[in-house]
Amino acid sequence: MTDPAPSPTDRWALRLEYHGGPFVGWQRQAAGLSVQAVLEGAASRLAGGAPVPSIVAGRTDAGVHARGQVAHIDLPAGALTGGKLRDALNFHMKPHPVVVLDAARVAPDWSARFSAERRRYLFRILNRSARPGLEAGTVWHVRHPLDTGRMAEAASHLLGRHDFTSFRASACQANSPVRTLDRLEVVRHGEIVEIHAEARSFLHHQVRNMVGTLKLVGTGDWAPDRVAAALAARHRAAAGPTAPADGLALMAVGYPTDPFASRPDQEPG
Amino acid sequence: MTDPAPSPTDRWALRLEYHGGPFVGWQRQAAGLSVQAVLEGAASRLAGGAPVPSIVAGRTDAGVHARGQVAHIDLPAGALTGGKLRDALNFHMKPHPVVVLDAARVAPDWSARFSAERRRYLFRILNRSARPGLEAGTVWHVRHPLDTGRMAEAASHLLGRHDFTSFRASACQANSPVRTLDRLEVVRHGEIVEIHAEARSFLHHQVRNMVGTLKLVGTGDWAPDRVAAALAARHRAAAGPTAPADGLALMAVGYPTDPFASRPDQEPG
Repeated sequence: MTDPAPSPTDRWALRLEYHGGPFVGWQRQAAGLSVQAVLEGAASRLAGGAPVPSIVAGRTDAGVHARGQVAHIDLPAGALTGGKLRDALNFHMKPHPVVVLDAARVAPDWSARFSAERRRYLFRILNRSARPGLEAGTVWHVRHPLDTGRMAEAASHLLGRHDFTSFRASACQANSPVRTLDRLEVVRHGEIVEIHAEARSFLHHQVRNMVGTLKLVGTGDWAPDRVAAALAARHRAAAGPTAPADGLALMAVGYPTDPFASRPDQEPG
Repeated sequence: MTDPAPSPTDRWALRLEYHGGPFVGWQRQAAGLSVQAVLEGAASRLAGGAPVPSIVAGRTDAGVHARGQVAHIDLPAGALTGGKLRDALNFHMKPHPVVVLDAARVAPDWSARFSAERRRYLFRILNRSARPGLEAGTVWHVRHPLDTGRMAEAASHLLGRHDFTSFRASACQANSPVRTLDRLEVVRHGEIVEIHAEARSFLHHQVRNMVGTLKLVGTGDWAPDRVAAALAARHRAAAGPTAPADGLALMAVGYPTDPFASRPDQEPG
């Protein structure tokens, strides 16, 4: 007797946007609603009720947003187009603030997580006296005027390949604390201070810990080169506090070949 | 016997930001929470519980946002600074998404409404297949690709001094349907189509009715010059439908002299 042949499946790459506010984060938790559960629930309805596990590029924490998260799922093989899959998932994910922007068929060994070679995050600070009105939930509110020139100088000490133990959450499960930070840019647009971070991968809380530290430099509490000392200390307590999740968004994930290059989201609606 | 002299008061101009989502609009209604009630409730606490009426430049509808609304109130005369008043009002308006950005003492005959000589609105359309994720509540979602060149051509027909009866809500209480539209600009930034409108004043629903009409041109349902015919018809049914409130924000109100020119919001926090 032989095992039955597995049903043929198609692997789909999905590019996702979501508001992190109502979620416990990407990953399923014992309690509370996760982005993963919303996506997998919708995908399961397209697979006749069978469970559809997903693999994701960046396991964002509770409250963290995404404009370009990437996940993959396997669905029963069929003649579905990317646009139809996107629309069907978006229909079933209502009313949650999670949407598929693009869906593209990929090779069966392609992985949203392991094929990724670049992650880009944006952290936004609202730097003014008044608390956020329209931007509530999507910015970190810092009242004290920030000197972005000093913050940029401090950021330059973190660029490159380093042991980022000082900027790593105690719960971080990565094997190595060594990462290569390719970009850490501080730009002001009026009342908004943007911090752009880019690397192959990040440690748990690394971006928020770097931002919390740069903020101390921006307010004048720290000299810029104290950030170099904090890095060299390889001890979490040497760096600043963790910035709140609200300001952070996963903007894009890069792959050797862009699975969405044909831009199915540009099909006429 | 003479009447007691009125208690001396100071008139304050307030620049406000708010998310229109949770409100029935600026103005108090029989039921539901208004922005006006939140502001006046906070102001009343600073006046020892006495009622503090407010006058506003733009009575925004339910769901319409503001980044630069202006109102004025009278408070018992005192040594308050603009920064202290802003902070106190913002404290008492918690947790509602309404904040005072600036507060400035003005002349006793200055009026947020009658001294205003310019209003600027921004309407944002999210033009893509997927419904909004992060932008839910602050954009109008239009799936069909919009041709912004055609929309800009159509918009040019509305510039200048016209009878805007075709773009006026039936409930509009203005004495005259004649307005002078100084700017109606259509600009695309990726998936976002922005429509900027500027005039001394607008009729009720005028911006949303113009946007709803320009959208018909953008999708190809209307030729651009049909907008000129709709204007000439002076009949509401000749123009397009009213665009939803979510996409609209009052950005700025202009006065002969900017009451906030000293920028009290720039005081260190």
